[in-house]
Amino acid sequence: MTSTFVLLHAKIEEMANMIEEFNDYRARMNEVILGKNNLVMKRLWNLDTNTYEDGALDKSTKEMLGLVASMVLRCDDCIKYHLGKCHELGITTEQVYEIFAVANIVGGTIVIPHTRRAAEYWEELVKQSS
Amino acid sequence: MTSTFVLLHAKIEEMANMIEEFNDYRARMNEVILGKNNLVMKRLWNLDTNTYEDGALDKSTKEMLGLVASMVLRCDDCIKYHLGKCHELGITTEQVYEIFAVANIVGGTIVIPHTRRAAEYWEELVKQSS
Amino acid sequence: MTSTFVLLHAKIEEMANMIEEFNDYRARMNEVILGKNNLVMKRLWNLDTNTYEDGALDKSTKEMLGLVASMVLRCDDCIKYHLGKCHELGITTEQVYEIFAVANIVGGTIVIPHTRRAAEYWEELVKQSS
Amino acid sequence: MTSTFVLLHAKIEEMANMIEEFNDYRARMNEVILGKNNLVMKRLWNLDTNTYEDGALDKSTKEMLGLVASMVLRCDDCIKYHLGKCHELGITTEQVYEIFAVANIVGGTIVIPHTRRAAEYWEELVKQSS
Amino acid sequence: MTSTFVLLHAKIEEMANMIEEFNDYRARMNEVILGKNNLVMKRLWNLDTNTYEDGALDKSTKEMLGLVASMVLRCDDCIKYHLGKCHELGITTEQVYEIFAVANIVGGTIVIPHTRRAAEYWEELVKQSS
Amino acid sequence: MTSTFVLLHAKIEEMANMIEEFNDYRARMNEVILGKNNLVMKRLWNLDTNTYEDGALDKSTKEMLGLVASMVLRCDDCIKYHLGKCHELGITTEQVYEIFAVANIVGGTIVIPHTRRAAEYWEELVKQSS
Repeated sequence: MTSTFVLLHAKIEEMANMIEEFNDYRARMNEVILGKNNLVMKRLWNLDTNTYEDGALDKSTKEMLGLVASMVLRCDDCIKYHLGKCHELGITTEQVYEIFAVANIVGGTIVIPHTRRAAEYWEELVKQSS
Repeated sequence: MTSTFVLLHAKIEEMANMIEEFNDYRARMNEVILGKNNLVMKRLWNLDTNTYEDGALDKSTKEMLGLVASMVLRCDDCIKYHLGKCHELGITTEQVYEIFAVANIVGGTIVIPHTRRAAEYWEELVKQSS
Repeated sequence: MTSTFVLLHAKIEEMANMIEEFNDYRARMNEVILGKNNLVMKRLWNLDTNTYEDGALDKSTKEMLGLVASMVLRCDDCIKYHLGKCHELGITTEQVYEIFAVANIVGGTIVIPHTRRAAEYWEELVKQSS
Repeated sequence: MTSTFVLLHAKIEEMANMIEEFNDYRARMNEVILGKNNLVMKRLWNLDTNTYEDGALDKSTKEMLGLVASMVLRCDDCIKYHLGKCHELGITTEQVYEIFAVANIVGGTIVIPHTRRAAEYWEELVKQSS
Repeated sequence: MTSTFVLLHAKIEEMANMIEEFNDYRARMNEVILGKNNLVMKRLWNLDTNTYEDGALDKSTKEMLGLVASMVLRCDDCIKYHLGKCHELGITTEQVYEIFAVANIVGGTIVIPHTRRAAEYWEELVKQSS
Repeated sequence: MTSTFVLLHAKIEEMANMIEEFNDYRARMNEVILGKNNLVMKRLWNLDTNTYEDGALDKSTKEMLGLVASMVLRCDDCIKYHLGKCHELGITTEQVYEIFAVANIVGGTIVIPHTRRAAEYWEELVKQSS
């Protein structure tokens, strides 16, 4: 009974910390990886940052492109990352769900489980900022 | 020591609740998603239900098709969903393993880790119904 | 003008020989590959044949599983191979289209171009046997 | 020598007709497929059309989303379709290449061969409209 | 507060047991699967073992091939398995990161989250053996 | 009859020019793409070249990694490119087939059609150099 309680409680903590946990793990492991000084990895990551900067298309559009690409490729962590960016840039819930719709139509019902986790993360982003 | 105990205990709970937990999360997040009233998402999900109904092929065959497609695309949650349906429709363990075999041959050894999780979930479905 | 005529004519020839051309290339290259005596390749190909034999599931069901798996993985040659087998085993056009439907729902609209080529090949199989 | 000439000539014809050929084959096979009256296929295709209509996001943004999704999933025909739509909607060459860039960064160098074919098709679209 | 403590503590335990946990689950589920006596599955698994034996290419090269293939296909458990083998065979950290680099360039930034988990597992393998 | 002859003859020409045609198209389209001065694309392509240079792993090993990655991701043009490089670097036919074997085991029978085209291209590379 106690263990169930702890599990449930832990579940709630985990939920509340979903965003923090994602960001912490990401930052920690990026440090490990970049610490190995592999030049190709370093340059690819720099390039990744450049890709989403304002250009002929603005940042918001590019982050939406990154999001839909991550969804059809079914990469949960990539989805979380781009959802965070979309949220920062003021993309609305209605717009995010239209991106989800494109991803589900193009990529099929196998995208649904990733959409569930994306929706959960988006709820959390909205809640934390309200 | 206590934390290890709690962890192990939690592990057992989690195992016992694998099916329930999957169904609960699925139901909860489907509600969140459908609550946003995105018409494309709604229609796609309706269509998804229609797809597996009796037609020129019967339900059982279609659920087996859904299962093998989910396996080669390596979507654990989709696999769980179709395993649940296959179990309800009376597909036998021997048949399920022949579906696993097709998926592993077509999709290669990268399907093995998903087969392990599928086997674990199937054991649970069989145990709960016996 | 002549070259356009030749192109169009060649197009028609090619269409008529779609099945033969597929089977010929397949046979010719299999011979090249197996001629190199790589043991893993040989065994995998034997195993591939075993996979679709009658068992707890019959051949027809297994070929349908192979077809839907090939479609969601978007492998045109694999699709052609399993369509050929499905045709031999007496699967009907209506049944084949229900398999197409599962593949398109699970795998999304990116499966559509492969469905077009599958439909073209199926028409040809039906025409040649009538 | 003559055959080489014919081949080369045919090559040029083919190039000039790249867009027409793509659209013709697509129209012809859609007719075959829809003619079979599979309800799931019909509805999915309707839904596909709805997905890219103006909403919280405008048509242009949605077509760009469709393009990048098609690129990372490496579906040449899907890419051609969305390039056609992007061209109709006035997306510029510079913008298209920023979409290519996102697709190549997210999806890696395996997207490059598809980018080559996309670039070729885009050149053709631009040339035909000038 | 207690539950947070338990969670954190459990986290540390889990980290320390990452390798053991992976191997245990793998062994346990392999036993379940092989216990069903599906011949295709059994033979595929034997063949899988044969594939990585010394031949025209040595074991180390083959394990590196297995690792990079697992990475671009984004199969975390396959990555862990081949990382374990690479570690046993004396592949260095610098070499492992060059394999990571090839995987990230070929497969794109969607490989990054898998690279993070791979890096974490590799650190653990190195730590346990020092 | 004439058109059949032309088709067959063209087929032979095409076969003989498989390598040249691949390299020509690649060079021509790279020029088009790089001519647009998209910075991300340019840098990614430079980085791609760097990735396969001698380091902790030698060029040959890296090209083999590139080949197996391309095979499991089923990218025919990428396969051709790395086969060309492997051939230049003196990788033997027996070694190439062991790479094919790893790719087929990891990626499954959907890799077979790509293995056929890879085998055809390899035969051509060997023939041209003898």
